[in-house]
Amino acid sequence: MAKATSKKKKLPVILITNDDGITAPGIRALVEAVKGLGKIVVVAPDKPQSGMGHAITIGHPLRLQKVNVLEGVEAYACSGTPVDCVKLAVDKVIHSKPDICLSGINHGANHSINVIYSGTMSAALEASIESIPSIGFSLLDLSIEADFTAAIQYARILVEHVLQMKKADKHLCLNVNFPKGDPKIIKGIKICRQAYAKYEEEFDERKDPHGRRYYWLTGEFVNFDKSRDTDVWALKNNYVSVVPVQFDLTNYTLKKKLETNWKF
Amino acid sequence: MAKATSKKKKLPVILITNDDGITAPGIRALVEAVKGLGKIVVVAPDKPQSGMGHAITIGHPLRLQKVNVLEGVEAYACSGTPVDCVKLAVDKVIHSKPDICLSGINHGANHSINVIYSGTMSAALEASIESIPSIGFSLLDLSIEADFTAAIQYARILVEHVLQMKKADKHLCLNVNFPKGDPKIIKGIKICRQAYAKYEEEFDERKDPHGRRYYWLTGEFVNFDKSRDTDVWALKNNYVSVVPVQFDLTNYTLKKKLETNWKF
Repeated sequence: MAKATSKKKKLPVILITNDDGITAPGIRALVEAVKGLGKIVVVAPDKPQSGMGHAITIGHPLRLQKVNVLEGVEAYACSGTPVDCVKLAVDKVIHSKPDICLSGINHGANHSINVIYSGTMSAALEASIESIPSIGFSLLDLSIEADFTAAIQYARILVEHVLQMKKADKHLCLNVNFPKGDPKIIKGIKICRQAYAKYEEEFDERKDPHGRRYYWLTGEFVNFDKSRDTDVWALKNNYVSVVPVQFDLTNYTLKKKLETNWKF
Repeated sequence: MAKATSKKKKLPVILITNDDGITAPGIRALVEAVKGLGKIVVVAPDKPQSGMGHAITIGHPLRLQKVNVLEGVEAYACSGTPVDCVKLAVDKVIHSKPDICLSGINHGANHSINVIYSGTMSAALEASIESIPSIGFSLLDLSIEADFTAAIQYARILVEHVLQMKKADKHLCLNVNFPKGDPKIIKGIKICRQAYAKYEEEFDERKDPHGRRYYWLTGEFVNFDKSRDTDVWALKNNYVSVVPVQFDLTNYTLKKKLETNWKF
């Protein structure tokens, strides 16, 4: 009995969020991936929040509602952004820092420059600012009927690795992407750097029924970075890509250059 | 005559945006700061967009309206986020890349971790992704009646420095913050790194007239990083802080560590 109690005490608290909303199949897949590894608490947006980046809600208040959408799992729908979800979960739901924060599994890629627009990854990054180790997961398949079989398997391996780190870097934050397709094609896991890629925007200009112009954001993804150490390369070659990311945006190379060359 | 024409041809195009909205005094101050340095085009949000981070608008279309709020300056109000403004300006207003993108002057600090939540800085970062050198400016004074005198003077110096760089790093992006107070107190400009600081959140929990709970985001800024090479130190000591920032979020130190220690 004593052993069981002490084991129970040690159960890690796993906070799960996403940016596709609490009813997305991806978050269900993530819950399934980590079942049994700890006490799961889900706090996720009540509606899709893709492309919200690191947005927070300051102009109006937030709502938080306990919901029963994930069998046997404590879950809350939040009216805010993915970053709001993390902040609110720590302060008002868990009332302390969880042992790990997981975000996703996103429906669609978050490799390369996508990391910066992604609500999924911003939630993970927010946790790492709060000194909570975190992982954001994304599957390169936008479909609502995407096959998460391989993603579930590899997500569990990665979460186990982080939980088993004796002293995980408290700001550890991983951007994990899974290739689309048959689980059997996956060759393994690859630690990578973020590829330099971007979107070539082309706004679709239309006129509304009243003759006034409006614009839809569209764009083509362009990868300028073919190196074998990038996430884009890994995914193209059927590896799960893992990019460790950070919230220190300082460009130290440019800093040195300006310190040398700029005199005021 | 010929000389004048060639001079006119070389006039750099300066795109200006912000996150406080096109009617904020800060954007007026930025226009004033760079008058005469090039052809100014303003594309800014039609309403406050503080704390929007790198959010983009994908779920609904954008509006763009020519407005006459800044005397003698071509200006457009956009219904989207600061990042949307940059994308739309390049594709639908300027129809090419401007020579520089300036964002601000923000009413309030964007030093240290604020860079990640800031719409002002995300607009600048977006420009640098597009290979447009950029600077985001912020004044440590939230007041609508803030005194921009010193900010205007130092912003011009910095823009001139970037425009005069023979070959500016095409991804150059600077996070510039100005101390609050009498212009005379400013000791100079300091190139810095981003301090490690964060907000200790405390949501203000209230009940609406129908008895349902809601939460206001509030938080206390805590600086964990007292080093003299940080932006927080520089500002506290009455320097203008300049942090070069980048969109490659890869944590190379952690990458090396995981490559060594993780075997799958």
